[in-house]
Amino acid sequence: MEQTDRSVLHGIKVVEVAQVAAVPMAGRHLADFGADVIHIEPPVTGDAWRNWQPGAPQQNVEGTQSPYINYCWENFNRNKRSITLNLATDSGREILYRLLSPADVFLTNLRSFERQKFQVEYNTLHQKFPHLIYGSLYGYGKAGPEKDAPAYDTISSWARAGLGYYFSHPGLPPFIGGAALGDTVAALGLALGVSLALINREKTGVGQEVDTSLLHIGMYQLTYFISGVCATGKDAKDWGTLPREKSPNPLILPYETKDNRWLLLSMPQSDRYWPKFCIAIGKEELIDDVRFFSSEKRTENSEALFRILTEFFLSRDLSEWKGRLSGAVPYSPYQNFLEAVADPQVRINNMLIPFEHPKYGRMEVIDNPVRLSDMPPTIRTPAPEIGQHTEEILLEYGYRRDDIERFKGEGTV
Amino acid sequence: MEQTDRSVLHGIKVVEVAQVAAVPMAGRHLADFGADVIHIEPPVTGDAWRNWQPGAPQQNVEGTQSPYINYCWENFNRNKRSITLNLATDSGREILYRLLSPADVFLTNLRSFERQKFQVEYNTLHQKFPHLIYGSLYGYGKAGPEKDAPAYDTISSWARAGLGYYFSHPGLPPFIGGAALGDTVAALGLALGVSLALINREKTGVGQEVDTSLLHIGMYQLTYFISGVCATGKDAKDWGTLPREKSPNPLILPYETKDNRWLLLSMPQSDRYWPKFCIAIGKEELIDDVRFFSSEKRTENSEALFRILTEFFLSRDLSEWKGRLSGAVPYSPYQNFLEAVADPQVRINNMLIPFEHPKYGRMEVIDNPVRLSDMPPTIRTPAPEIGQHTEEILLEYGYRRDDIERFKGEGTV
Repeated sequence: MEQTDRSVLHGIKVVEVAQVAAVPMAGRHLADFGADVIHIEPPVTGDAWRNWQPGAPQQNVEGTQSPYINYCWENFNRNKRSITLNLATDSGREILYRLLSPADVFLTNLRSFERQKFQVEYNTLHQKFPHLIYGSLYGYGKAGPEKDAPAYDTISSWARAGLGYYFSHPGLPPFIGGAALGDTVAALGLALGVSLALINREKTGVGQEVDTSLLHIGMYQLTYFISGVCATGKDAKDWGTLPREKSPNPLILPYETKDNRWLLLSMPQSDRYWPKFCIAIGKEELIDDVRFFSSEKRTENSEALFRILTEFFLSRDLSEWKGRLSGAVPYSPYQNFLEAVADPQVRINNMLIPFEHPKYGRMEVIDNPVRLSDMPPTIRTPAPEIGQHTEEILLEYGYRRDDIERFKGEGTV
Repeated sequence: MEQTDRSVLHGIKVVEVAQVAAVPMAGRHLADFGADVIHIEPPVTGDAWRNWQPGAPQQNVEGTQSPYINYCWENFNRNKRSITLNLATDSGREILYRLLSPADVFLTNLRSFERQKFQVEYNTLHQKFPHLIYGSLYGYGKAGPEKDAPAYDTISSWARAGLGYYFSHPGLPPFIGGAALGDTVAALGLALGVSLALINREKTGVGQEVDTSLLHIGMYQLTYFISGVCATGKDAKDWGTLPREKSPNPLILPYETKDNRWLLLSMPQSDRYWPKFCIAIGKEELIDDVRFFSSEKRTENSEALFRILTEFFLSRDLSEWKGRLSGAVPYSPYQNFLEAVADPQVRINNMLIPFEHPKYGRMEVIDNPVRLSDMPPTIRTPAPEIGQHTEEILLEYGYRRDDIERFKGEGTV
């Protein structure tokens, strides 16, 4: 596989028995930094994530090609190779073990009964391959009555840890919280753990298990609130979800504009910005207004200030407020996805980068958000077709043409 | 500083010129895995995060102790040492350079004009300390007209990247998105980058700059949608935010219960669970109902199924649904923070762990979500008081008692 010698993880071999979002994204981080990542998929059906994006047709059980650009798949699985393998067969497992023998990292999100069935539990693999780092994602942790419960970030992280509760309006259905928002965070955590285990293996030569869970990741993301419950026994949500007019600081609130858009002010340390803010919005007369001239006074008279700002922001379009506020005070428009993609800061900093895709042509993908100045993440190859590298990998690992034909005949690959 | 020899990052020295949430949390990850992290704070005022938690009094400019448990501070800064240092003075900078001389990692979220002012830009430090890894967080990337704009995750990640847009109801004010939800993700990304740079430095002996930005992290978390806009030029939000009755799959929706709680079903591959689901909820007659017996039929008659399920879930309390659904199908109650903290899976898997705090007594903190089996993250010391280790560190780095008195007299520390 094409690699750049300057990549941090050049020479690191990763084998991934996982599908959908979180663990494949962890593998993608390693791949972006130069690891050789082999993504193992069930024959015929392949990874469910191949047909699981917004607007995608429902599950395509025949595994045929979708007619559209498979962009989620592309962004979660670039830089990898794909081999199909039926792990329920002896020969499938034998091939897997052969791939694992020189591997540095094994990544999986299988549930414990599946790991047993396929003989890929940590203890089994650690005994066979002591140098192997075993990266594991669980839904609800590795112990307890729900250790084998089916998990998705929507239920295991979003709803269960309290994110759905935080972002909800009384009387309205809560959000589903989909879109792999928890998976992408878990992926960073798992990739971090694997990197730490690689650092350690340099010294000891021995691998270990690295794990995280979607539930723990959700709790971690909510440290701000969860640590409060731990310390006080009380739910601290109210602080962030007061009705706007009750907020002690009107300078950290969303306001609607004349064209029915919204912007968000963010001046928690409001004394630093108050005069600048008044000048920027063209309300200089407020600077020395006795009701508002200090953060204490603004809290005392917060509802009055909220009403003034609400009315005033409604008097002009978002574009005008952008011109006045940008660079002057901490604020942001609420951007939709089209605007985010066109954002000058996104463009100038190359957060989205062009990629010549062999099938789709020139497309844009999201660059890795983690950057190293001397050995930046690279995009070398597109996400693989299902089983695209099956033969290449089997030959590379010492199988012969007639082995491959036999595996195909048996449905192993 | 007390360390466990078995920690992965034992012996790694980190110096942190950063405050509030994201970068200190990146430093905490390194500290949890055994690094010696020195957190540098401005004298007198200290790190703003010390007084910035739900229900906290407004900014306490005198820097006096809050009367309550400072749990956010505690969870973002445990395992570190604190030194106060006025970086605007020559002697403050001299001390910083002395700390950096044997350091492995420098972490900062200063803006570029501040880095220039304090002479801690990457080029300066890389030239002086070629082995030093320089970990940087930006709000909107390191280039462009807003590279120096003030940044918080609310504005730079949540509102700007499109998270606030995704989680919004038409006609209602969007959420502020606070609570360091983007900061905690950026922290994982930065810690991952630093770990990769450490892996590389083993080979080359040379450090490099590692960076990420809150905006890029938000775009990354939204890969699901942003990659769609990149590929199609269209906004794919609708898929996740259809009115519930219009959803093609009623088995991935939130439903209200009799006691006005909510639960979330998550069966995107619904054929795998349909009969089990019908049995679990006690609606066996639906299994072979011609309107619903396959995913295609359920999509065709989705509104009818949605109405049946809506009515049926409203007929019983959440506790009864828990008993029926748990372990049978992928689902979760929407838990509030109190429930999340009491969750048996959280407890059995020790996601929250007791800590004997010298000032607060026994308290619970959130364990690191990234776990290594042989050298797990540890909690060794509480988050430091402001400047708690100033003298200890200065003595350790070769200053004498009379130097320290002089620094104090000059306001350097």
